[in-house]
Amino acid sequence: VTRDDAQALDAADALAGLRSAFALPDGVIYLDGNSLGPPPVAVHERMAQVTRREWGEGLVRSWNTADWIGAPLRVGGKIARLIGAKASEVTVADSTTVNLFKLASGALTLRPGRTTMLSEAGNFPTNLYALQGLEAQLAGRATLKTLPPTDVVAAIDEDTAAVVLTHVHYKTARRWDMNAVTAAAHAKGALVIWDLCHSAGAIAVDLNGAKADLAIGCSYKYLNGGPGAPAFLFVAERHQAKIRSPLTGWMGHAEPFAFEDGYRGAADIRGQITGTPPILGLAALEVGIDLQLEADPALVEAKGLALAGLFIAEVEARGADPALTLTGPRNPAERGLHVSFAHPEGYAIVQAMMARRIIGDFRAPDIARFGFSPLFLSYVEVWDAAHALADLLASRGWDRPEFRTRAAVT
Amino acid sequence: VTRDDAQALDAADALAGLRSAFALPDGVIYLDGNSLGPPPVAVHERMAQVTRREWGEGLVRSWNTADWIGAPLRVGGKIARLIGAKASEVTVADSTTVNLFKLASGALTLRPGRTTMLSEAGNFPTNLYALQGLEAQLAGRATLKTLPPTDVVAAIDEDTAAVVLTHVHYKTARRWDMNAVTAAAHAKGALVIWDLCHSAGAIAVDLNGAKADLAIGCSYKYLNGGPGAPAFLFVAERHQAKIRSPLTGWMGHAEPFAFEDGYRGAADIRGQITGTPPILGLAALEVGIDLQLEADPALVEAKGLALAGLFIAEVEARGADPALTLTGPRNPAERGLHVSFAHPEGYAIVQAMMARRIIGDFRAPDIARFGFSPLFLSYVEVWDAAHALADLLASRGWDRPEFRTRAAVT
Repeated sequence: VTRDDAQALDAADALAGLRSAFALPDGVIYLDGNSLGPPPVAVHERMAQVTRREWGEGLVRSWNTADWIGAPLRVGGKIARLIGAKASEVTVADSTTVNLFKLASGALTLRPGRTTMLSEAGNFPTNLYALQGLEAQLAGRATLKTLPPTDVVAAIDEDTAAVVLTHVHYKTARRWDMNAVTAAAHAKGALVIWDLCHSAGAIAVDLNGAKADLAIGCSYKYLNGGPGAPAFLFVAERHQAKIRSPLTGWMGHAEPFAFEDGYRGAADIRGQITGTPPILGLAALEVGIDLQLEADPALVEAKGLALAGLFIAEVEARGADPALTLTGPRNPAERGLHVSFAHPEGYAIVQAMMARRIIGDFRAPDIARFGFSPLFLSYVEVWDAAHALADLLASRGWDRPEFRTRAAVT
Repeated sequence: VTRDDAQALDAADALAGLRSAFALPDGVIYLDGNSLGPPPVAVHERMAQVTRREWGEGLVRSWNTADWIGAPLRVGGKIARLIGAKASEVTVADSTTVNLFKLASGALTLRPGRTTMLSEAGNFPTNLYALQGLEAQLAGRATLKTLPPTDVVAAIDEDTAAVVLTHVHYKTARRWDMNAVTAAAHAKGALVIWDLCHSAGAIAVDLNGAKADLAIGCSYKYLNGGPGAPAFLFVAERHQAKIRSPLTGWMGHAEPFAFEDGYRGAADIRGQITGTPPILGLAALEVGIDLQLEADPALVEAKGLALAGLFIAEVEARGADPALTLTGPRNPAERGLHVSFAHPEGYAIVQAMMARRIIGDFRAPDIARFGFSPLFLSYVEVWDAAHALADLLASRGWDRPEFRTRAAVT
């Protein structure tokens, strides 16, 4: 593929018009939207509006007049359209970690008598940590079993309450077959909790098409919701009346403003909301979601996979460094939108790329990771980034002491 | 007290200069800073900076370059100075509800063999709900006992793991004697979890002076952190190595970026952090905290109590409606900074006051509540508000159908 070929792909790209909705710094090629999406241009005006007009002029009245109180369900309902769910099945709340704790605990209440929570070794750590915390707290009533990914499905049995899997793996980009795994779990009477952190806004997820039970996800990656944006969760309608959250807070009460001493949980998705909703975070997030809704999810996925494929092909075609190894699947149907190359100098490579204003990230112990957000990246940018990486490897341009100095966040 | 007297009090008010740090709408008297504090003027510039420069230009690099990753401890350390704690004892995290769940569960781990969580009937509901959720989840290993406030201290016994009390009651403004209750609990080997929602930024709290164990609080009231701002929590240094949070997330791990499968909690206050920190909320909150730090907490408390006292005295002196009853203590030493009047038409009274651009709030079933934030209110405003309320009561100005229409958030 030549650079002219890449330009031709851009000219034919139905999503190319969305690039102008983001204000990226000049000269930066941003291949880390899978860690933190960039701000939509519209978010600046919206944040000024929410702080000056709604907070500053409306003051406490804005809980009603600006419908702050409705924001978790309103934004959740919009996210639902991106992941194949009904509006009544999704809410924004808390963090991904807290949401997993709630839903894993809830899954155990939906499957009384079953004690096993099943996940894969090497899952994104906070998922395993949340399940370990729950295991410790339940002191014998729940056990986390982690297995290599190849062994997970076969291990689902009559004691499995919930299978907890990240749909697209944060390192390898390996994608689980949501339909098949969900069906296999259901065949044994187990539930599945899907973590959509690397899927929402990237892969055309269809939760209801897969008969999914429960899902969680973060909103600061492909959804461009902002740093530490509030997370979302999905509970299929059929489970909502029965599932119990352990984190019962006033916003999950059937009548929060009745100020009763006893908790009566809302029987719908509101029962998964805990405390007072984070309005500034929700306001920024809604801008990202509204922008995402302008794009057809199938086109988003197809472009992202094409960008990732182009990057892999162009880097490997140069064969610049035999130590560089693609981690995870090549087949687009089996992968998400980021590309991870293992290399003993992965950290220094990412730093050296950053010095060239091409931003990716590092994942311990040796992964240089690059993400391909379809809403703002062009084929030419990806082509340029691939060639820059190939040049860097060929010249050992990463081999400088300053590229090995570790920052707090890698 | 005449209006001229009130003006003289303003002229002598050492905190009067802080009013200009807030941009309140013209003609509004804002007596609901105890529900949602108004935005500091500086927050608008700061939010533009964090979204445009840090998020927009720094992108993912800002986790390091703008020290986003350090924000929970940095802002927590500033809050510590307002509540008599060491910087290393406070962090910002999650919501008040989630933080109480973590610390109540943690208190049980600090007091093995004890099963009782003791609280007062009529505590702010989300506190009771969080404890009820924990009780249900622990299935027999913990029991919530709620008693009338007068009976709580006597009921602390050798089975009490934790006493959970809101320092200043959300309705009555009754203030617990933090030193005495903490000492009484310690005498029985129990811990106390103090909810500082209506204290932080209002009352000169000295957690370490009281030998306090654990505390939680929200930051959108007197701390002016913004709608749904992230909450804080305090763990006394002596408890930090032993306390276990059930909500173990990657940000509480000793080495979050080692990406290990097994949770190893940080042995310091970081062990109470769960997910990715909410940066937009933290940025706004820090502005509120920085402003609060300009004021001497003793002066803040003294002025707030004087404002509340002036309001009570002026309303009652007019004796306009015998159905109006002060709820809670009159003695400034036994109360916080809001004033609650019970009245059968409490809801309509609050709405009618709002129509006069004097903003308070309603708490079911019959409380008209007015809060006296010392950083932005003047004595004259409070005098005017008191006389407006007295006039309204004398004229039955609340007796109109539109003032009885309930909004979603009361």
